[in-house]
Amino acid sequence: MTNPTAAMLVIGDEILSGRTRDANMYHLANELTKVGIDLKEVRVVSDDKDAIIAAIRSLKQRFDTVFTSGGIGPTHDDITADCVAQAFDVAIDVRKDAYDLMDAHYKAQGSEFTETRMRMARIPDTATLIENPVSIAPGFTIENVHVMAGVPKIFEAMVASVLPTVSGGEPLISQTYRIERGEGIVAEPLRDLAEKYSDLSLGSYPFQKNGAFGTNIVIRGTDEARVSAAIQDLTAQFPNNGVE
Amino acid sequence: MTNPTAAMLVIGDEILSGRTRDANMYHLANELTKVGIDLKEVRVVSDDKDAIIAAIRSLKQRFDTVFTSGGIGPTHDDITADCVAQAFDVAIDVRKDAYDLMDAHYKAQGSEFTETRMRMARIPDTATLIENPVSIAPGFTIENVHVMAGVPKIFEAMVASVLPTVSGGEPLISQTYRIERGEGIVAEPLRDLAEKYSDLSLGSYPFQKNGAFGTNIVIRGTDEARVSAAIQDLTAQFPNNGVE
Repeated sequence: MTNPTAAMLVIGDEILSGRTRDANMYHLANELTKVGIDLKEVRVVSDDKDAIIAAIRSLKQRFDTVFTSGGIGPTHDDITADCVAQAFDVAIDVRKDAYDLMDAHYKAQGSEFTETRMRMARIPDTATLIENPVSIAPGFTIENVHVMAGVPKIFEAMVASVLPTVSGGEPLISQTYRIERGEGIVAEPLRDLAEKYSDLSLGSYPFQKNGAFGTNIVIRGTDEARVSAAIQDLTAQFPNNGVE
Repeated sequence: MTNPTAAMLVIGDEILSGRTRDANMYHLANELTKVGIDLKEVRVVSDDKDAIIAAIRSLKQRFDTVFTSGGIGPTHDDITADCVAQAFDVAIDVRKDAYDLMDAHYKAQGSEFTETRMRMARIPDTATLIENPVSIAPGFTIENVHVMAGVPKIFEAMVASVLPTVSGGEPLISQTYRIERGEGIVAEPLRDLAEKYSDLSLGSYPFQKNGAFGTNIVIRGTDEARVSAAIQDLTAQFPNNGVE
């Protein structure tokens, strides 16, 4: 069985200029791994209409599910919702369900529901809303694309409410074995192991810290017994973590 | 004058599985901003031949310069060099210049130049080598694509030696003004400001920390006087950082 696939689209000049270090990609990657969905591609594009539309059109076609992050706030450069509508060829306007949610929220807060805030109630036709428990202005899902905020706290809350609706594959089991030898020494036995356990995914991650160096071997698969067998095989070849 | 453009391709399952948090994107984004090159797109793809080749072909055509990170180590899943060769339709084999560098290094170290390590001397025809002061095995440049290692220390060293050879645009001046008001309040004045200063780039970045919330406004441009004028304009509208 192959797992369902996913892609992520991160929208925003702040990542590409190096001003902000992306946190949402790391969060989503971990959440998807837990439920057995394979994140296959991430794209980061700037607040540019053509770039956003082209990326959404390409990703929604090639992957089972697409998650977007960023560009749905109230400012002039928040153009994601309009771009998504265009990518799906549907109309977009301030929508009553989103408007009502936000209107009630600002009334309860005693603050004004300004025209710029109303931008955040623009939702494409046929989309369903994604709850925003942090600041109310919702995300939305249209077909296989989930459109979410870029602020990490809100993004994480939206991912938590969307993920149970996305059917995952078998969760991935992952085990790590640390070998106190460089990747050059480990590579050949690892290649043989990868051939023997072709149903598993083997990764090697060199580390170098405080003068010590070595390689972490991560073995992943959906069958726990197979993962354990591969780890035992590796342990037999590099007993005692490869320390001579 | 428009700045030269760049794209980055990050190769590796470890980012997409959430095992490793990407550091190279953040580093490169900052370095490019300093020298006035606009990073327009980042893609992260898995260790998959077709995905890597397709991404390189697409990016090298659309942007002035492409930087890749990852997949040039000695293990079975390090396939970047071969994919780049294929994307450029050139041959690839162990190349004497790379071989000699590494051979001398391992001899000096008293360690063996194994067959698996020799994988790292595979360099596409017509490419020039990028120095690796950390662990010798080189990266390479072919036309407008710079192929570098994924280990952050090595990636950073390679970026440092490549960047002076890439002609940048005018360095970007960036100034930030902190406003202790939500993005919904700031959005409208900001839109007017963006119209008035259409030669500058204005970004708003909401923050929420320990109960306090507000918006950082970042104004970027190549003309320092214009950036300062826009900041003064904004300060006049929200004196005292917007604190009432």
